[in-house]
Amino acid sequence: MNSHCATGGWVLGNLIDGTQAEYVRIPHAINSLYKLPGNIDPAEMAGFSDAFPTGMECGTLNANVQPGKSLAIVGAGPVGLAAMLTSKLYSPYPIVVLDKDSNRLEQAKKLGADKVINVDAFNAMEELDSVVDGKGFDSVIEAVGTPITFDLCQKILAPGGSLANVGVHGQKASLDLDKLWDHNITGQGINTRLVDTLTIPTLLRLFQAGRFQSTLLTHRYPFSDISKAYHAFQMAPKEGILKVGIDF
Amino acid sequence: MNSHCATGGWVLGNLIDGTQAEYVRIPHAINSLYKLPGNIDPAEMAGFSDAFPTGMECGTLNANVQPGKSLAIVGAGPVGLAAMLTSKLYSPYPIVVLDKDSNRLEQAKKLGADKVINVDAFNAMEELDSVVDGKGFDSVIEAVGTPITFDLCQKILAPGGSLANVGVHGQKASLDLDKLWDHNITGQGINTRLVDTLTIPTLLRLFQAGRFQSTLLTHRYPFSDISKAYHAFQMAPKEGILKVGIDF
Amino acid sequence: MNSHCATGGWVLGNLIDGTQAEYVRIPHAINSLYKLPGNIDPAEMAGFSDAFPTGMECGTLNANVQPGKSLAIVGAGPVGLAAMLTSKLYSPYPIVVLDKDSNRLEQAKKLGADKVINVDAFNAMEELDSVVDGKGFDSVIEAVGTPITFDLCQKILAPGGSLANVGVHGQKASLDLDKLWDHNITGQGINTRLVDTLTIPTLLRLFQAGRFQSTLLTHRYPFSDISKAYHAFQMAPKEGILKVGIDF
Amino acid sequence: MNSHCATGGWVLGNLIDGTQAEYVRIPHAINSLYKLPGNIDPAEMAGFSDAFPTGMECGTLNANVQPGKSLAIVGAGPVGLAAMLTSKLYSPYPIVVLDKDSNRLEQAKKLGADKVINVDAFNAMEELDSVVDGKGFDSVIEAVGTPITFDLCQKILAPGGSLANVGVHGQKASLDLDKLWDHNITGQGINTRLVDTLTIPTLLRLFQAGRFQSTLLTHRYPFSDISKAYHAFQMAPKEGILKVGIDF
Repeated sequence: MNSHCATGGWVLGNLIDGTQAEYVRIPHAINSLYKLPGNIDPAEMAGFSDAFPTGMECGTLNANVQPGKSLAIVGAGPVGLAAMLTSKLYSPYPIVVLDKDSNRLEQAKKLGADKVINVDAFNAMEELDSVVDGKGFDSVIEAVGTPITFDLCQKILAPGGSLANVGVHGQKASLDLDKLWDHNITGQGINTRLVDTLTIPTLLRLFQAGRFQSTLLTHRYPFSDISKAYHAFQMAPKEGILKVGIDF
Repeated sequence: MNSHCATGGWVLGNLIDGTQAEYVRIPHAINSLYKLPGNIDPAEMAGFSDAFPTGMECGTLNANVQPGKSLAIVGAGPVGLAAMLTSKLYSPYPIVVLDKDSNRLEQAKKLGADKVINVDAFNAMEELDSVVDGKGFDSVIEAVGTPITFDLCQKILAPGGSLANVGVHGQKASLDLDKLWDHNITGQGINTRLVDTLTIPTLLRLFQAGRFQSTLLTHRYPFSDISKAYHAFQMAPKEGILKVGIDF
Repeated sequence: MNSHCATGGWVLGNLIDGTQAEYVRIPHAINSLYKLPGNIDPAEMAGFSDAFPTGMECGTLNANVQPGKSLAIVGAGPVGLAAMLTSKLYSPYPIVVLDKDSNRLEQAKKLGADKVINVDAFNAMEELDSVVDGKGFDSVIEAVGTPITFDLCQKILAPGGSLANVGVHGQKASLDLDKLWDHNITGQGINTRLVDTLTIPTLLRLFQAGRFQSTLLTHRYPFSDISKAYHAFQMAPKEGILKVGIDF
Repeated sequence: MNSHCATGGWVLGNLIDGTQAEYVRIPHAINSLYKLPGNIDPAEMAGFSDAFPTGMECGTLNANVQPGKSLAIVGAGPVGLAAMLTSKLYSPYPIVVLDKDSNRLEQAKKLGADKVINVDAFNAMEELDSVVDGKGFDSVIEAVGTPITFDLCQKILAPGGSLANVGVHGQKASLDLDKLWDHNITGQGINTRLVDTLTIPTLLRLFQAGRFQSTLLTHRYPFSDISKAYHAFQMAPKEGILKVGIDF
């Protein structure tokens, strides 16, 4: 479990600063670096070091996404969309994406959601229920990180379902054990995960094979405009910005 | 998933009264009745219709109990003890049982706990930590059903661990997502289950093979003393009462 | 395990004749009949009672097909192609299909094989090796049913791989234990299966969701031409005949 | 998969000679050496570097041994017995051990087999059938390595069963696909494995916890009598010799 390695884990950009320097020392490099094939544009691969493995491991795998099983994703930011793009590797149906931002929902729709629902819509819960005939979702992915979005996720879980928490939470949440205790949340339960990045080689193979509709890279800037790049990334989700690349 | 059968589920003694009558109609009997071999005392088997399959399915299986992996069980009532007796089928180590009743802890010790800890002891958490070198438990079973016991369970989970909720809860609990989000609760997550009773045939075979140290039947009464039997059951955990049998 | 039900199993057309009569008694109908939604053409669904669940259960699931893992399918008849179409639900890569009939290989290519290889080609084994850099295939599906095709399958298995036998065999085969004993055939091993048809509801949902490129129905005849239909089915694989429908 | 590491694997005593020297270089030592706690007698642990992890990984785990499921082990040498001792961690029932040597069968009985059968007995197959009411065994472990013992194993597999090959084979075997193709060998199939030794830490913990009835060490010699030790080991199974220790 790389993420809980006592002498490693999530250190670059977290405990180790300066990784935009020309050279950087990578601890445990033998297990954590993957060589890109020569013909791949590095900027396109930015999402494959972070959003894609996070979406795959913390979202798709932990939510036990399976062919023909229903899937709801709460949150359509880059990680939520990466969870959706990787979940499609397992052919769930239907895929429903929820957010309060209509731009992001539109992107989710374009990238393959069967249905998108704005949680601020007055009849959002009814719409959601109608998709699965009131039976709840087999797989639910929380990709926001707030008590209120987690609460939505637990309320729409089907018996036998799995709730994969991907969001980074700063507060406790409320767990409806009075309702869930006999609801058989038995798939992979309610789970959490800091990405281990074990799936990167698989994801790279699948990218090369053309199995992903998008890398989520939407904007790129030359190095001289790096501050514009950071500014743009902060502006997301405005104007459809997802991942921002910087060219050296 | 028997427990969520739309036309069945947990009905006897719940939605259907009167199952101490001489005859009783059993819905879906083809899937829910098991014939006891002639030489088994029916009173001994009382726990095998309820506490043992609950301990096995909602506790042992859902907590992903495995050989050599650490296990903590919070609550040493009949279901907690049944979870312990069935967990031993998978040879976890160490098995630590927690309760606030010293009689129950003594019983747990006799039935095979490697260590018992009284949660009211001033240094309970330190003792618990020392058993697993501060790393948390791989498998945790909640067998009480209160916010405070659930809270204890989530605090002692190891990365990669599973928390099986067996307790019947009447209230919501607090979920420490601010601490758990990157703690990789990935085994089978935090899960819940109403017993499906699918393991009864297996448990009966193992009982016949002498693989259980106890059936948890501690007291029995003739039918004429049925009110004493109910009184005794309500007195549990006093005087070591676990399961009470009524002989016809 | 429906297929080994002591009072059921594979009986229609096997132990029970006459299922083209107007009415037919179906044993254990409560577990074995699925209602087609009104808007689906029954002829299109012929393959969903047999080839598709067989391909899915005996092939895709038993070969442990996984995203980005390599897959070889030996035999491109209707069942081999159904194994391929259902395996794509799990996004393996690459998918290589082998046969000796070039028509069938062409169909496999059209339906989504990444590569097809004619086993009669003089350099077939070299080509096969080159696809996976000599490492063997993670998933191998035998969809013919002869000692020679089984032999090919066992020779191309990677360590950690799974070999799903789908073919109906009339003879023993040779098992290369002298080479395999230390080759770690540990995925799901070398396995066999008579279809249980448990995946039919899932497959129907996915068909309705448009997730299959083909139903394998290539030819259809009116009931009055039923003998032509049987004749055509016997002619397969000539002229691209896969599944033949009869309209009532 | 350590056993198939391209720059490591099974090298000591296989590709690297001389490991009874005073010092020895261990490739990939960071992943392959485990520190014995100070109070354990090293000679007792000889079996934990080889027979026990082999029995556990190639036998117990690969045969999908489960509580209350039937288990047959063909071969009662040290590895077969280690498979039996580790399989008991999962509480199968019944455990039947087969061999042609009555000394070894007696040892198997002492170490916990529910039943032992001499394969040379005229009614061996009938006895075997009667144990499982003619239904076959859920888990079968081959611990000899000959075509004839493998043949016995495949003939006694139940639908849904798993056959773990542990024996080292020098020849091909015959695989009864004409009978097995519809017999649903679906558990973990017929599988093979060279030990990866990943379970050593778990086995050591369980040994320290007193969970094993035996370490299989039956004889020990001082270093000055090393040739007697080798001679004794070659004499096994005569006179109950299993593992032989050499004291330095």
